[in-house]
Amino acid sequence: MRTFKLVLEYDGTNYHGWQVQPGLATVQEALEEALARIVGAPVHVMGAGRTDAGVHALGQVASFRAEIRLDPATLQRALNAHLPRDIAVLEAAEALPGFDARRDARGRTYRYTFLCRPHRSALWRHRALHIPRPLDLEAMAAAAACLVGEHDFSAFRAANCTAPSPVRRVSEARIERQEDLAHFTITADAFLQHMVRIIMGTLLQVGEGRLTPAGFEEVLASRDRNRAGKTLDPRGLCLVHVTYP
Amino acid sequence: MRTFKLVLEYDGTNYHGWQVQPGLATVQEALEEALARIVGAPVHVMGAGRTDAGVHALGQVASFRAEIRLDPATLQRALNAHLPRDIAVLEAAEALPGFDARRDARGRTYRYTFLCRPHRSALWRHRALHIPRPLDLEAMAAAAACLVGEHDFSAFRAANCTAPSPVRRVSEARIERQEDLAHFTITADAFLQHMVRIIMGTLLQVGEGRLTPAGFEEVLASRDRNRAGKTLDPRGLCLVHVTYP
Repeated sequence: MRTFKLVLEYDGTNYHGWQVQPGLATVQEALEEALARIVGAPVHVMGAGRTDAGVHALGQVASFRAEIRLDPATLQRALNAHLPRDIAVLEAAEALPGFDARRDARGRTYRYTFLCRPHRSALWRHRALHIPRPLDLEAMAAAAACLVGEHDFSAFRAANCTAPSPVRRVSEARIERQEDLAHFTITADAFLQHMVRIIMGTLLQVGEGRLTPAGFEEVLASRDRNRAGKTLDPRGLCLVHVTYP
Repeated sequence: MRTFKLVLEYDGTNYHGWQVQPGLATVQEALEEALARIVGAPVHVMGAGRTDAGVHALGQVASFRAEIRLDPATLQRALNAHLPRDIAVLEAAEALPGFDARRDARGRTYRYTFLCRPHRSALWRHRALHIPRPLDLEAMAAAAACLVGEHDFSAFRAANCTAPSPVRRVSEARIERQEDLAHFTITADAFLQHMVRIIMGTLLQVGEGRLTPAGFEEVLASRDRNRAGKTLDPRGLCLVHVTYP
């Protein structure tokens, strides 16, 4: 058996997220089907991030073990020939035995994109959340700064999140403006369920002047989901990078 | 009757181009249907550029006359509520009587995008032409420079183009690299049918080393469609701007 590591880009619009769910199209299932056709046997893949329905990826990482003789470059070409057009393999490499894309990941970087202008966009409709009012990005950046460090993120955690601990270490939280777009980038060792989308829903309150940066910090400290904002639309979210030791 | 000017963004992926064709979904038809619902009477719109099937727009301009009392801002909001999600109205204004988006346009700017990397992209699959080999962008830019000025563009004209004259004035032709993407921007008073896509097919030969910049200039001078490259895929093309006096 050999172990492989894949870096994946996908458009999550037409998928019910990463993880296999009976009867629903998911990215994991599409990848496992393509691999099964190439390998000639069932293959189970492990993904670094369990992206939600509609969430995109520029750098999801997946691992799997299989009995194949193909070199990684040939495997990559075969996968890109078999996969649906909205999933692409950017890199394929042989990994050390025992490599697990999920367990071994040391950092995940997500990006959330707002489109701030009065009228909606046709070309960004699946890739950004349209906010028809101007946002105070400086206040949002000031609020986001308090996320950096090790914190109990219970305030920004879905009710049905099953992670044993609500503590995560955030190493980066920043906002960049690009014309009408505002890209919010956040890196952590790992994320709780819906954590980025709930953080963004709360930062949106700051950007709209309904919450101060100090109030945002109080929400984090409260560990109370009821004090945080809503879970924002998945279409603005993209898993951009996963790091390994 | 009042005359209006609209600036439109659209994702051309699911349309058979701009112009109305019986039984096929087109952008013009979608716009006329939305206007008819708002105005309560049939409306005929004129577009500055007849974009082909699959071609996108960031700044298509359309004009129409109608008997309505709505102010332009309200009209814009109503259109964005009625139009399909892959068409958006970026601007709406009242124009001088007699304004015609097609006849009065003095310049059109198109952008063609190549994705140059070994593996295909999921997120750019509808927006760029994937070229799995490196392109010599400097040679392409050198070749493109000869397009600027007034020329007979018969070499870069579709066989069934009905324009009375093959002479056009190109004011700008440049290439910008953005990571794996190469954006080619060309501005002219007007374009012949398939002109940008045939120019791009011929520039691609230059980028791949199959034609020199001097050879490209000879193709232009020959006025012979048979010496030019193929008509490139529409998905890489976008109408970005239209100028008026």
